Amino acid sequence: MLGRLSVTPTDDDLTAPPATSWVVEADRRVRYDVTVSRDIFALDNHSLMQAGTTASATTRRRFVVIDQTVHRLYGDLFDKYLRHHGIMAQLCVLDATEQEKSMESVAHIVRGLDEFGIDRRREPIIGIGGGVLLDIVGVASSLYRRHTPYVRVPTTLIGLVDAGVGVKTGVNFNGHKNRLGTYEAPAATLLDRNFLTTLDRRHLSNGLAEILKIALIKDRALFDQLETYGRVLLDERLQGTTPVNEIAAREVLRRAVHGMLEELQPNLWETKLERLVDYGHSFSPAIEMAALPDLLHGEAVTIDMALTTLIAHGRGLVGDTDRDRVLAVMNLLELPTHHRGCTPELLAKALADTTRHRDGLQRLPLPVGIGDAVFVNDVTDDELRRAADAIAVAAGATTGSPR
Amino acid sequence: MLGRLSVTPTDDDLTAPPATSWVVEADRRVRYDVTVSRDIFALDNHSLMQAGTTASATTRRRFVVIDQTVHRLYGDLFDKYLRHHGIMAQLCVLDATEQEKSMESVAHIVRGLDEFGIDRRREPIIGIGGGVLLDIVGVASSLYRRHTPYVRVPTTLIGLVDAGVGVKTGVNFNGHKNRLGTYEAPAATLLDRNFLTTLDRRHLSNGLAEILKIALIKDRALFDQLETYGRVLLDERLQGTTPVNEIAAREVLRRAVHGMLEELQPNLWETKLERLVDYGHSFSPAIEMAALPDLLHGEAVTIDMALTTLIAHGRGLVGDTDRDRVLAVMNLLELPTHHRGCTPELLAKALADTTRHRDGLQRLPLPVGIGDAVFVNDVTDDELRRAADAIAVAAGATTGSPR
Repeated sequence: MLGRLSVTPTDDDLTAPPATSWVVEADRRVRYDVTVSRDIFALDNHSLMQAGTTASATTRRRFVVIDQTVHRLYGDLFDKYLRHHGIMAQLCVLDATEQEKSMESVAHIVRGLDEFGIDRRREPIIGIGGGVLLDIVGVASSLYRRHTPYVRVPTTLIGLVDAGVGVKTGVNFNGHKNRLGTYEAPAATLLDRNFLTTLDRRHLSNGLAEILKIALIKDRALFDQLETYGRVLLDERLQGTTPVNEIAAREVLRRAVHGMLEELQPNLWETKLERLVDYGHSFSPAIEMAALPDLLHGEAVTIDMALTTLIAHGRGLVGDTDRDRVLAVMNLLELPTHHRGCTPELLAKALADTTRHRDGLQRLPLPVGIGDAVFVNDVTDDELRRAADAIAVAAGATTGSPR
Repeated sequence: MLGRLSVTPTDDDLTAPPATSWVVEADRRVRYDVTVSRDIFALDNHSLMQAGTTASATTRRRFVVIDQTVHRLYGDLFDKYLRHHGIMAQLCVLDATEQEKSMESVAHIVRGLDEFGIDRRREPIIGIGGGVLLDIVGVASSLYRRHTPYVRVPTTLIGLVDAGVGVKTGVNFNGHKNRLGTYEAPAATLLDRNFLTTLDRRHLSNGLAEILKIALIKDRALFDQLETYGRVLLDERLQGTTPVNEIAAREVLRRAVHGMLEELQPNLWETKLERLVDYGHSFSPAIEMAALPDLLHGEAVTIDMALTTLIAHGRGLVGDTDRDRVLAVMNLLELPTHHRGCTPELLAKALADTTRHRDGLQRLPLPVGIGDAVFVNDVTDDELRRAADAIAVAAGATTGSPR
């Protein structure tokens, strides 16, 4: 169905009172590709130049927004790639930090697009960087001439499995995170884990947290793989130095992305407020904010998941063994399970904020064993307190001292 | 069809090379109401408070962005209305000019929304003003928390029949008109021609130009009505002081909006570049710009329509009688058919710009008689020159002297 136009009263009814009313309905088809590629700057790899174009609608010009650090590390390689393929590229190098995640950065990109004189039907904007950079590029692409296609190339693990594969864009405004943004699908997303070779260990753990999230709520086999290969994935930066490790790295990424897309696709515009992928994201916004600048996003998410695993354990949804395995894997992935800022007061306030954002209900995903979940609306402050106490003890027991 | 998620290779194919690729597809349903109402600030009229809400999801709070002039003229009446209905409203009064059509005005609205603490699921933003104001409010609503519903209340005739009933939003940036914007349908649009009582005569003509456009490309009966009642509509500001005039005003508005929506609905996102509603909008952007500040939008559109009527006449698509009737109605509606700035050079450049925006083809709608149109791609500079000469002569003959 492609929508319709209906009118009340009908055209012929000239005697009716002047209460004419039309209903305009239409469906906007959104379609994007998420493709795993290796070594996208290799001279014989055409995926970057082909992404978001067709053979009949492309040129040898591109406007590229690239993160400052990525540019420092890969700029020469990228330059060789562009010259080899005869591409006239204009690079816009951004210092893509939370502080620079603003409408000013969007304006900077837009002025660059004007200067470049982009042919928006043949020259998709290319964004190369972490989640922050991709969010900013997404806002600029959404707004430029009421939408200009863009290609996402995430360069962090969290970008590869989370921020990079969805359709959300955003910048901070007036002191609020992502206060301004859109849901605007990229033309294409390219996933290249080669970028992880230059990612520091803590940021690898940070990305593994979002992979663990998918495992806990819907993919027990993925959990098993993290349990078996988590440490080697971290040590090898998911590069697979042996055939077994290579399959493990590939499979963990594939399952994580697949699980994420399965959850996103039926709810791209977040009209449904019960989202499994919100697991780990109920208490973590407040935790991340309170602990600033101690915690990375994935670390705060893990603290939330540890807490909610304990809540689920308190309700008999997760048994002793599964609880211990979950906490052990968090530990194995070098992720924190507790932060001293997690006071009962903070947690109660965090839940109240989340409930407000979820239109008055907690809609809290809780794990059921490993690999399944339910939504609950009745977590009490008392339950929260007991879980927080239990996790503080468990965290002290496993890591020696809470962060 | 609600979309799908497909993956290559399939989940089981672990031996395949690491070229996994997903296609994410989904349809976003857009639906909005356009409703004719009379006297929306009358105390017994509930349409404004009900617009964009349901009985189960509404509050007695509203954030209203209102044009400065409209506020001066209707502020007291609106205030009484709000008090009568017990509405706690925060008004954001904007000087909605082309100069203020900027991201700064969007930021101003957003700060107001933060301060108001809007409940975005129950409290649609209300925009009351002309096309410029509605465009700005549309951008703010599109971006605020990745979309907050909004209600459009156009207060000019061009807003009632054109800018107000579609889904485009936009602000000027970096010296370009509407460089930044979105396609974002309002939750509802309310059309109240009472606002026309305070609109000056020239702006009434300005709106009648867009009505005439619809008539010329697709509705001969509407043209007949304009020919018969055009002058009285102008004199009476479409208020219908006799039953016959009332039916005429109502019908002209209804047909104009209906015709507009018929063209918009199948092409809401302008993926199809051959748009009948672009009639009058091929040469007019350049004419409007070159003549600044002489011409209103609808005036430049009429000059474009007069010119293209003459081009069509030169091709035998419009006969002598129809040509004369069209020019006479433009004159009757007090609209210009020529401007001294319309040099052959300007017109040739305008067509080149338009062709570029329409992806390399002219896709020029030309009238066929009255009430029908075709698209052509082969208008020559020579044809342009002859039509421009002819219209200069005709304009001189009908108005005494060209503007």
